[in-house]
Amino acid sequence: MNTFQFINPAKILFGRGQVAKIKDEIPEYGRRILLLYGGGSIKKNGLYDQVTRALSEIPGAHVVELSGVEPNPRLTTVNKGIELIKQNDLDFILAVGGGSVIDCAKAIAVGVHYEGDVWDIVTNKAIPTKAVPIGTVLTISATGSEMNGGSVITNWAENDKRFFVSNHTFPKFSVLDPEITASVPKDQTVYGIVDIMSHVFEQYFHDSSKAPLQERFGESILQTTMEAAPKLIDDLHHFEYREVIMLNGTFALNGILSMGIEADWATHMIEHAVSAVHDIPHGGGLAILFPNWMEFVAAKKPVKVAQLGIRVFGIEAENRKDSDLAAETIRKLREFWSSLGAPSKLSDYGINDSEIDLMAERAMVAETIGNYVPLTKKDVESILRNSI
Amino acid sequence: MNTFQFINPAKILFGRGQVAKIKDEIPEYGRRILLLYGGGSIKKNGLYDQVTRALSEIPGAHVVELSGVEPNPRLTTVNKGIELIKQNDLDFILAVGGGSVIDCAKAIAVGVHYEGDVWDIVTNKAIPTKAVPIGTVLTISATGSEMNGGSVITNWAENDKRFFVSNHTFPKFSVLDPEITASVPKDQTVYGIVDIMSHVFEQYFHDSSKAPLQERFGESILQTTMEAAPKLIDDLHHFEYREVIMLNGTFALNGILSMGIEADWATHMIEHAVSAVHDIPHGGGLAILFPNWMEFVAAKKPVKVAQLGIRVFGIEAENRKDSDLAAETIRKLREFWSSLGAPSKLSDYGINDSEIDLMAERAMVAETIGNYVPLTKKDVESILRNSI
Repeated sequence: MNTFQFINPAKILFGRGQVAKIKDEIPEYGRRILLLYGGGSIKKNGLYDQVTRALSEIPGAHVVELSGVEPNPRLTTVNKGIELIKQNDLDFILAVGGGSVIDCAKAIAVGVHYEGDVWDIVTNKAIPTKAVPIGTVLTISATGSEMNGGSVITNWAENDKRFFVSNHTFPKFSVLDPEITASVPKDQTVYGIVDIMSHVFEQYFHDSSKAPLQERFGESILQTTMEAAPKLIDDLHHFEYREVIMLNGTFALNGILSMGIEADWATHMIEHAVSAVHDIPHGGGLAILFPNWMEFVAAKKPVKVAQLGIRVFGIEAENRKDSDLAAETIRKLREFWSSLGAPSKLSDYGINDSEIDLMAERAMVAETIGNYVPLTKKDVESILRNSI
Repeated sequence: MNTFQFINPAKILFGRGQVAKIKDEIPEYGRRILLLYGGGSIKKNGLYDQVTRALSEIPGAHVVELSGVEPNPRLTTVNKGIELIKQNDLDFILAVGGGSVIDCAKAIAVGVHYEGDVWDIVTNKAIPTKAVPIGTVLTISATGSEMNGGSVITNWAENDKRFFVSNHTFPKFSVLDPEITASVPKDQTVYGIVDIMSHVFEQYFHDSSKAPLQERFGESILQTTMEAAPKLIDDLHHFEYREVIMLNGTFALNGILSMGIEADWATHMIEHAVSAVHDIPHGGGLAILFPNWMEFVAAKKPVKVAQLGIRVFGIEAENRKDSDLAAETIRKLREFWSSLGAPSKLSDYGINDSEIDLMAERAMVAETIGNYVPLTKKDVESILRNSI
């Protein structure tokens, strides 16, 4: 393993009825609260009422709302949040939503304490040193943002989607009540499952043979996700399957899988480029891109793809070459995601090859991207072309 | 799953050379430091020098030493530490050692802020509300105390060994440098491995079928421990195997395996009773007791023992009854621990059946102990008799 530091101080409140507990958690940090949420689905499913009821039980609480955070949260919305906090002298952010709302909250939290343009922080040109404390109530299992310090923000003025990570932006607490996710529609549920599995893949593909526990932990998340996912898609309100997917999503990106290894993240960079140019769902983009990325790297290094197939997809290894096993693994992954209803081609979203160059350009945040097989711009173009 | 709260704010500094970093970590909490350690092995292997050099680089640091913490740390030593902190107005405890030294540090840390006898806290008659901050430098992989809030203390005046858990006693940081553990002798290394596997077992045996991720995580720790352990015992200085065992020991008891389930812990209670009466090594006691506990519960509920055998010990399940699979699992566990050199009978430590009643009495901290199969005093006596 590489030398590493691990810390994750986020407190998880898991299970039915945990939303009410926010009234005990928030006052430790502040009482002037920015309540941040998305398009208003929380008003339909009753969560908004649950949350505001709990907030009303905090003596002396003052709540300012900001709604309308977009699925790919925008820099313009982050700036609105920063302004609101400054104008109203707020000291806590409660993010009620999925990864987008939580990511937006993190960018607001660090932007308040930064003199310049918060985009500097998102693009890692400035390092945050302080943040407004955040709590979250999670409404969709996918990004893992509820238990990490990462945030992805889109700048439409520049067609750019970037991310930053900070130890200052761990949520102080996150409420994970699987019941809240029961009303998430099928397509969003599928995208979440793809996102969760993709997070494991990003941290599974590396060259170290010296991190067996982290590898097995990743396989554990994949195995249990793949057991629960088809049953959940058949019965979207099933509490126990929602529960498994919710915990898995949180643990897929809370840091334990990348202890002491170099994670890859190339596919996420490519997907961010695609959805910065076309506003497609992140999970949909990943479902299309990941098998094609895997095919590309398996041509050079099939060994880890083969191991994934043997350990997670139950492929028989006897007397077979790694390249053969890798090909079967990728076929099985495509079959699995298709069986859930995930898209498999960018053309499903009306994207054709006319913008491959622009998307590849956007993906190249460095000379090469990814670590398992570092990709040049030409490699990225090739993966994108195979994904059309 | 049951509703649960999870938090673990301990910071892990993992890898070679991390001891030097304590000089950056400690000043966040204090500069008047109680340096706590055990029998002096850290003076032989150079760790004491490494630590004191790092401490000497903290401007304004004042260090008071307390050495001689016992392998089963004693209430008398805890009280000495409390006195030293009060007399010298210290504000930080650096525990350099294994689980015993760290556990002792935790009891001192809460005892300083408690007016009565700290034994009240250890026996859960009083709840700690505050603690002196602790940092640790781990010297042996076993108890997991470096990343949790638990502490086990022995009261020889009352032949009693008890434990408490608190959110106030998480170490602020723990240095995990596998190289430090390279000089741990074979028997201690084996006891540590048995302890690590036992911690997984305690959290693996429960009735819930709704915590598949936690179950797979436990199996991951067992699998990778069982892969590395025999190689490590053959080559005690091998860095990579030490590394795997060290990370596994920490994750076996940092809380992730018991999220949302009822852990068992009966075997630990029985072992604590045995080693409160006879001062035997904790890992040695567990190696003897666990297979006998498993045999006892398998007679009533073989299913989980069978699952352990199939998933971790590679036992073929086809056309076989759970009871048969469970018996093979227990045989394989005994074989594995014996192959490492662990003891298998209490009589190996000169314990005969004359004190079964006293030990069973001590183990019964409640009407029944354990959750997978709640044990009466008679059950405990039977397990002890089979262990002689």
